[in-house]
Amino acid sequence: MKYRLLAPGPTPVPDRVLLSMSKHIIHHRTAAFEKIFAECKDGLKWLLSSTSAPLTLASSGTGAFEAAVQNFFSKGDTVLCIGGGKFGENWLKMSRCFGLNAVDIPVTWGHAVEINAVKNALLKHPDCKGVIIVASETSTGVRHPYEKIGELLKDRPQCLFVVDGITAMGVWDIAPDREHIDILVSGSQKGMMLPPGLAFIWASEKAWEQQSHANLPRFYFDLAKERKAQDKNQTAYTPAVSLIMGLHEALCMMKEEGKENIFKRHDRLARATRAAMTALGLKLFAQSPSESITSVYTPEGLPDDSIYKSLMKMGNFTIAGGQDALKGKIFRIGHMGYVDDIDIIGVLGSLEIILKKLGYEKFRLGASLEASAAILQEGFASKN
Amino acid sequence: MKYRLLAPGPTPVPDRVLLSMSKHIIHHRTAAFEKIFAECKDGLKWLLSSTSAPLTLASSGTGAFEAAVQNFFSKGDTVLCIGGGKFGENWLKMSRCFGLNAVDIPVTWGHAVEINAVKNALLKHPDCKGVIIVASETSTGVRHPYEKIGELLKDRPQCLFVVDGITAMGVWDIAPDREHIDILVSGSQKGMMLPPGLAFIWASEKAWEQQSHANLPRFYFDLAKERKAQDKNQTAYTPAVSLIMGLHEALCMMKEEGKENIFKRHDRLARATRAAMTALGLKLFAQSPSESITSVYTPEGLPDDSIYKSLMKMGNFTIAGGQDALKGKIFRIGHMGYVDDIDIIGVLGSLEIILKKLGYEKFRLGASLEASAAILQEGFASKN
Repeated sequence: MKYRLLAPGPTPVPDRVLLSMSKHIIHHRTAAFEKIFAECKDGLKWLLSSTSAPLTLASSGTGAFEAAVQNFFSKGDTVLCIGGGKFGENWLKMSRCFGLNAVDIPVTWGHAVEINAVKNALLKHPDCKGVIIVASETSTGVRHPYEKIGELLKDRPQCLFVVDGITAMGVWDIAPDREHIDILVSGSQKGMMLPPGLAFIWASEKAWEQQSHANLPRFYFDLAKERKAQDKNQTAYTPAVSLIMGLHEALCMMKEEGKENIFKRHDRLARATRAAMTALGLKLFAQSPSESITSVYTPEGLPDDSIYKSLMKMGNFTIAGGQDALKGKIFRIGHMGYVDDIDIIGVLGSLEIILKKLGYEKFRLGASLEASAAILQEGFASKN
Repeated sequence: MKYRLLAPGPTPVPDRVLLSMSKHIIHHRTAAFEKIFAECKDGLKWLLSSTSAPLTLASSGTGAFEAAVQNFFSKGDTVLCIGGGKFGENWLKMSRCFGLNAVDIPVTWGHAVEINAVKNALLKHPDCKGVIIVASETSTGVRHPYEKIGELLKDRPQCLFVVDGITAMGVWDIAPDREHIDILVSGSQKGMMLPPGLAFIWASEKAWEQQSHANLPRFYFDLAKERKAQDKNQTAYTPAVSLIMGLHEALCMMKEEGKENIFKRHDRLARATRAAMTALGLKLFAQSPSESITSVYTPEGLPDDSIYKSLMKMGNFTIAGGQDALKGKIFRIGHMGYVDDIDIIGVLGSLEIILKKLGYEKFRLGASLEASAAILQEGFASKN
């Protein structure tokens, strides 16, 4: 049966990208590789509307988190970590693991952080060296108002604003220069339409200035060494060449679609999915939903994970269930990267059939399709 | 022009592996992925003749070095680092970077370590917690007598034997259980016939016991967490799924060829290449050569890197020049992974033409082909 990947990552990889990765590998210490790498850097700058490119690392996204902590902070530095999900909490754990004085700003899962909570924490910790937030919390489907925190921090020369953009980059117009982000971290397997295995880390000049005297040990993720190499279109250690070939192709596709169209598409799919869930009488989990993921409560009375499992059985879909405390309680539909309007229509129609079969009756067949079509037509209209 | 990759890594990736990586990506939190991952683990056990599988990480080989240092040692631990090349020296730098008391056992580049030097260092540092060696030093083409060091260390319960097997695994019969290795590190882009982006780390029970009380901070490379996940055919963080699909196919190919045949092939190609160089009047650089790489002095009077550059220009070959202090002084031919007898004949014939063209006259045309054919015929004979 056709495989339909609508998870909050990894996301579907376009055939063009798969085929580009199936070309014969080239040695990385060659002019041919350097040309491709230089074009990738240009594409990434374009995507982030920045004059500087992020560094590309051979690791999953968590590796780039580690690089952020190891390179830009010193033992004992106070950092504020904004919670509210598995990934936010991971940053807290990691910061503590490396000896930072990480202060938790707790957030109820499913909610976005209150700006006042951050303001109060900044008053309490005027010496803090960083604020860390997940732009789009993959575990809950929440988009935090990170831009407002960028505004709060922009005039603090000693405090770095670290944004985990793993399910944001390539999804909406996240722009570190404009949004006063100092360190932006991302991965390949979400909005970038690639398999997992590459991570990205962008840093501001303010962050690089801190890097030069930050004292945590680092080697594989030594970003000063990496920056020096990548400035020459090389990498400090052996790069994941095939994934970089894929990145090159994915960026070509993104340029063809156009940034504005990509961001509009994600916004439209997210609104359509949410409208559909409401039309089915289902309750959205995220109070401030991300364009990347829609998270929905499993209806009362239905067995844990029944929707996730039935979609897999019926249509060979992979969506996602809940993580940690949310295990079984929610399901999550990813609509980022190489996902289009018709994929959304397909999953909604399937979901309706499944819900009826599971005995959930609070809707009439077609309700979610009707609600979503009212929004998805924007995309079709723009093609005339 | 056809691309001919005969570098000491990355090495050629077979079409079958490239095509397996161009299949649609599967989500990693699924039974389908777990089945593939379990089969990869079995294949890796088979290859290393061990009852336990190495952990597979999403990083290049240097990431797995870092994992070895972070997980199995504590700040201030004395470790002996055997030098003799760029990679041996990298281990020294890395160990110091993480606060170990790393003692250098210097070795002249091109030579193998003397066992007495290790014995003396052990006498001087009876409390040492580890000895680190590169089995096959990629920068010089030397194979160190690591097995003898395993024998020296096997009865020291407090001292871990760390072997960098990056250009050894899949090349010769490196077997950590039999060879008293405690930590074996490797990467995907050498004998394993894959693109770069995966690393492997195998640890003995003795090493795991140390891991539980080693106190360096670690998060992305937290091997206890990784082991717990991989025991269940999962990974702690998002795995490089497409490369794991490739690993699965590469291991299938290795099983089809048979371990004995793989190891014989590498030994044969190495002997043939060395005999050919001698027949051309060229001087081998490595005193104790590895089966993976043949390193050869650039003949006097020829411009630095002229052989490397001419092979690229004439036949679209990528071999390698020298690194660091050896820049321009040597060239290195890789013959590991997906490289066969006929590839070697091709590069030798091309080399003869190039040498004549560069004005090097110390041989008659055909000399290297004659010398290598005397050895390569073993491989053809075995096919009758």
